[in-house]
Amino acid sequence: MFSQRIDGLRPSPIRSILNVIERPGMVSFAGGLPATDALPSWSGAVPPALLQYGRSEGEPELRAAVSDSLRALGVDAPPERVMILSGSQQGIDLTAKLFVDPGTTVAVEYPTYLAALQVLRFYGAEFADIATSALERVPLGYVVPTFANPTGACMSETERDRLAETCLRTGTAVFEDDPYRELAYEPCDRTPIVARMVGGTWIYQGSFSKTFAPGLRLGYLAASEDLFEHLVAIKQATDLHSSRLSQRIVFDAITDPGWPARLAGLVSFYRSRRDAFEGSLRRHFDGLATWDTPPGGLFYWLRLQRPIDTRTLLADAIENRVAFMPGEEFSPGQPDIGTMRLNFSHASADDTERGLRTLARILARAS
Amino acid sequence: MFSQRIDGLRPSPIRSILNVIERPGMVSFAGGLPATDALPSWSGAVPPALLQYGRSEGEPELRAAVSDSLRALGVDAPPERVMILSGSQQGIDLTAKLFVDPGTTVAVEYPTYLAALQVLRFYGAEFADIATSALERVPLGYVVPTFANPTGACMSETERDRLAETCLRTGTAVFEDDPYRELAYEPCDRTPIVARMVGGTWIYQGSFSKTFAPGLRLGYLAASEDLFEHLVAIKQATDLHSSRLSQRIVFDAITDPGWPARLAGLVSFYRSRRDAFEGSLRRHFDGLATWDTPPGGLFYWLRLQRPIDTRTLLADAIENRVAFMPGEEFSPGQPDIGTMRLNFSHASADDTERGLRTLARILARAS
Repeated sequence: MFSQRIDGLRPSPIRSILNVIERPGMVSFAGGLPATDALPSWSGAVPPALLQYGRSEGEPELRAAVSDSLRALGVDAPPERVMILSGSQQGIDLTAKLFVDPGTTVAVEYPTYLAALQVLRFYGAEFADIATSALERVPLGYVVPTFANPTGACMSETERDRLAETCLRTGTAVFEDDPYRELAYEPCDRTPIVARMVGGTWIYQGSFSKTFAPGLRLGYLAASEDLFEHLVAIKQATDLHSSRLSQRIVFDAITDPGWPARLAGLVSFYRSRRDAFEGSLRRHFDGLATWDTPPGGLFYWLRLQRPIDTRTLLADAIENRVAFMPGEEFSPGQPDIGTMRLNFSHASADDTERGLRTLARILARAS
Repeated sequence: MFSQRIDGLRPSPIRSILNVIERPGMVSFAGGLPATDALPSWSGAVPPALLQYGRSEGEPELRAAVSDSLRALGVDAPPERVMILSGSQQGIDLTAKLFVDPGTTVAVEYPTYLAALQVLRFYGAEFADIATSALERVPLGYVVPTFANPTGACMSETERDRLAETCLRTGTAVFEDDPYRELAYEPCDRTPIVARMVGGTWIYQGSFSKTFAPGLRLGYLAASEDLFEHLVAIKQATDLHSSRLSQRIVFDAITDPGWPARLAGLVSFYRSRRDAFEGSLRRHFDGLATWDTPPGGLFYWLRLQRPIDTRTLLADAIENRVAFMPGEEFSPGQPDIGTMRLNFSHASADDTERGLRTLARILARAS
């Protein structure tokens, strides 16, 4: 099931020792730790102990808070199987390291998240369509079932059940990437797929980039027991651990009594951005493209009425001060010609109106 | 020269687009960026823009500051070829991704940094002794020439010259890992090896963990032109970028007028810890082990007079509340039996005295 490189991954003796040196009264000559007295006293708000090396799994308090939120979703994720990530891009890298050798098949949605394809390909993955392939000999499936990137779609309960059942039967590990879960603008059943996989093999990951702040680079994962220790060992070899300061800031934020109100405000703000975007789209893209209104997330997915490779339009668009993502790049196989991914969260309503008008003009000229 | 996986690494279209969307007046539908208005106003000290996604290379101001310090050492490192890392462990991972396929030979010192061996092995590396091997068909050499981990040794000018010359001749890329440079307790010529490699292929990396704070997870690398863009693309696929908040904190610290005084104070503090350690060692290990007094860095390297595999002593030591690193683990080949790495920066003088007395007693009992 795992990549060949996992055979060479011995648990680090440093790691085993680190687990005991925190015992009271222990004199440690083992690590390469700075003296705690020599750490800077940076701002009164940050205890110097937080500036010392930390655990690869993450800070216990943050792991416990994440565990609580995951268990509320029905995911079997005790704190001991929660790991803090340096952003959820890192979760993809760690998972690819664990599973992918050159030629390993990974089942994905068509289309799917570009940067996941990029990392999986980097380790030599080949792709199969998770919706149509038999998964018997597929070790890993990667999905963004909730407000997918790039399509914005939300997988139905039936589809989730079916995927969980299939993967339980075939022994395929499910890697559920769920950064957009909180950004729901319409009701949408979205219990995680991995909540249906008791006894199965799975990784679930989330991000604080969409609900809090991407610049801190913080995400998390939980995994089934057969995977978790491997992922921690890989994380340790990758960057030792994630910033403890970022972890403290995020912990304070998500456990603040004001957090639910912040999330509600965010959802309402992005919903109105989506609605403004929808209005501009209807004004300018009617007859040029079709789309579904995304029930959540950050993206519109447009399919052009007359399919042009939108990569050929990008230079013209940028010259006219509008940037978009050609949809062709999100396809694991042949480019899906005549598709565009448009983000609606970043630009103001005025900029959206101007940008979409410009883009429609460029498109009409090229069609 | 590169690993096979580099063939599959296409520059990300997102990355190319990110480089233009910062132009004034650009409306971007391209990324998945949160609205800047929706970012938290966390503490008055942090501009919200810093909480947004950033560049894979790092913050321009920090890259420029690192570039200045590297150029003062004679390293050809303009800001455009400096990249900020999520700790220098990450630099090892990125470099291994760039160079190592199963069976690739990497030349290293015997012994060398354990966690580097671990990562290189993970990607399938085999090892050769950089001091004694012909490097003709060796694509990569990894060295910690200044206050090495684990030995504390400082490579002489002659050795540095010779290694640079050899690698220039054989086309071997030099990866110089230099986290301890500032921690010099005695005069020691330590111009980087890569400063002698004009026209060659090299990576130089440093860390803020030893001089500032490991918990922020921040380091940096500079590389020759043939490597740099590959390393940025790999960094992007690995974690997008490093924490912008950590970068701002470190930038403020290292450009503060008090920074040189902080470094001087740190060196003097660690020198006195080393001297206290030396005193305790002489009291308790005379006749049990030999060692060189390290001119810098964080470690003593002990060679036992009667070689016992020190891994067999660890459980007993820990039970007696002393932790150390068995030296056997630092060997790329056969374990180097009868060696120990002892950190002297972390424990107080009193704890050191008690810990070394205990360790000597355990050792004498076992010998």
